[in-house]
Amino acid sequence: MPQPVHGGNLVWAAALAGCPPSAILDFSASISPLGPPNSALAAIGSQLVNLRHYPDPDYRELRLALGDFHQLPPEWILPGNGSAELLSLAGRELAQLAATALITPAFGDYYRALAAYNALVLEFPLDLVTLVMSDLSWIFDKIQNPKDFGLLLNNPHNPTGKLFARSAILPYLEEFALVVVDEAFMDFLPQDKEQSLIEVVQEYPNLVILRSLTKFYSLPGLRLGYAIAHPSRLRQWQLWRDPWPVNTLAAAAAIAALQDREFQMQTWVWLPPVRNQLFEGLASFSGLQPFHSAANFLLVESQQSSSQLQHKLLKHHQILIRDCLSFPELGDRYFRVAVLTDSDNQRLLKAIAKSLSES
Amino acid sequence: MPQPVHGGNLVWAAALAGCPPSAILDFSASISPLGPPNSALAAIGSQLVNLRHYPDPDYRELRLALGDFHQLPPEWILPGNGSAELLSLAGRELAQLAATALITPAFGDYYRALAAYNALVLEFPLDLVTLVMSDLSWIFDKIQNPKDFGLLLNNPHNPTGKLFARSAILPYLEEFALVVVDEAFMDFLPQDKEQSLIEVVQEYPNLVILRSLTKFYSLPGLRLGYAIAHPSRLRQWQLWRDPWPVNTLAAAAAIAALQDREFQMQTWVWLPPVRNQLFEGLASFSGLQPFHSAANFLLVESQQSSSQLQHKLLKHHQILIRDCLSFPELGDRYFRVAVLTDSDNQRLLKAIAKSLSES
Repeated sequence: MPQPVHGGNLVWAAALAGCPPSAILDFSASISPLGPPNSALAAIGSQLVNLRHYPDPDYRELRLALGDFHQLPPEWILPGNGSAELLSLAGRELAQLAATALITPAFGDYYRALAAYNALVLEFPLDLVTLVMSDLSWIFDKIQNPKDFGLLLNNPHNPTGKLFARSAILPYLEEFALVVVDEAFMDFLPQDKEQSLIEVVQEYPNLVILRSLTKFYSLPGLRLGYAIAHPSRLRQWQLWRDPWPVNTLAAAAAIAALQDREFQMQTWVWLPPVRNQLFEGLASFSGLQPFHSAANFLLVESQQSSSQLQHKLLKHHQILIRDCLSFPELGDRYFRVAVLTDSDNQRLLKAIAKSLSES
Repeated sequence: MPQPVHGGNLVWAAALAGCPPSAILDFSASISPLGPPNSALAAIGSQLVNLRHYPDPDYRELRLALGDFHQLPPEWILPGNGSAELLSLAGRELAQLAATALITPAFGDYYRALAAYNALVLEFPLDLVTLVMSDLSWIFDKIQNPKDFGLLLNNPHNPTGKLFARSAILPYLEEFALVVVDEAFMDFLPQDKEQSLIEVVQEYPNLVILRSLTKFYSLPGLRLGYAIAHPSRLRQWQLWRDPWPVNTLAAAAAIAALQDREFQMQTWVWLPPVRNQLFEGLASFSGLQPFHSAANFLLVESQQSSSQLQHKLLKHHQILIRDCLSFPELGDRYFRVAVLTDSDNQRLLKAIAKSLSES
């Protein structure tokens, strides 16, 4: 039974563990354990009466809230049905270029979005030891004229958790015809640490930033993401897709979540120490080496087979970790775990200890 | 101030009427006044706890429920973010053909979906007196080889409300390379009257049927539609778009609504007499001529300017009717009204009486 893409994997995992999906402790999806914020759930409840109306196709209120949050005029923001929908539109744009440079290992849906419009993909693997952005410099030796090429990367990088400095990406904006930066995990960084390109987007008409409310606000079931880019590009994208991509409940939840400063502060205070504790716990096992991460997950290099470990954890502990078989650069010697609550993380560490001692 | 596409028009109307949008009695969107069903709202509430999980990318439960409803294997069904999303995918397919025959007057979003992929459109106007499908026969004089061409129509037809017999469409399935039938209003017909092509879809790999839960279940804010077509076509479409187009709440509401036979029966019993009453009321005005309709709306031909009537109804009665300026074949001498509750319909008729007597 092959493991499906995420979203389907709880059903697969439950079958293997012999328990209902709700009994699985899921470290495989990088979703914050703190959400969804009550503010967002309350907003959903308050909008049930409005389901009988079409959403505003301009999503004016939502764009104003997003604009307010990012200090941008609303026309620089296009909400979508999860950032995955906007990635498909980015894929259509990138396919019009000679080729797209993709920083790998890369999220599987990047390949899907690029293939959907037959974009030519040039893979640029990160050095898995150094993880430094300067590795990218050799792109220019490979590519004759970057002006015809696109660049797609995420920051922080998934699955390594590496945060690239803003200054490391800026040079590529001068070189590439189109740069798409998926910042799905950037909101886990507090304002004084984040390296978002949003603050320079108005200077670069060839820059597209993708953001998501999925991970930080624990709302993957709601589907809400947005693109930030030059208004003329977003107007074009709008014509490529249907007029009401975001449902009324998702729009209301997003507005409430963005205004929930308390939830945001709570997350920023919570994450670093608990991530550090999980890192130390994992590093204490001989044969496991976690990567330092700016996001809410840790990539772990493992001397033993990760799928074997995954199966043991499922069968004996009903715990699901993310194997990395879908990242060809990583394969069976890596796995990824979300940072969950301290008690859940302790449960994971104990289960790993048991599983490793059995092998 | 130009009138925006629907969804935005309540804001526009409220500004003109000088009242909040919620005070407008909206006859412009063809949404049933009976819904949303409580079963669907309850299902939404019960799924809030699952927003922290990704939806199942296979939407297995939803497809099973839809398959059960239509007596089709689930792989013949692809759920989408409103039928508008699936229309965009149909547009991409139609654009690969030499041209697409479009029955007009046609819903504005058909033009958007066809233009999104630069499809060539051949307009085939319905005769606005007879409305018979045999008018379509002259397509074959215009088109040399229909095998290279697509056909896009809706049934029942919007905005006329005309129901085409299944037997009137079947010949085109033999002639055209791809036939896309938007059946967004077909569920308003009880089983013994409906003319859906779903019952023959397994015989025609060149047939795509689009359905929506928007109108019948009064859920335009939720965004849920589906395509019914050959599994290999749907697998292709799935690769063109993101893996989680339908959010968890919409999927749950859909399953509940489909199983709500009581709500369906109630709607089928309610609609014909109240539509007939509204028809008679409108026909009693000299200068107004409603069209017979199989759906939950009535198109009305008017001897006086419809936009003038629309403005009067808004300013003096806070009632919004749908002008037909966005249908070039119709223009200012037609308007469309939804069939609402008996008391709302009476309010409309009284307001029209007053407005006509003032002119």
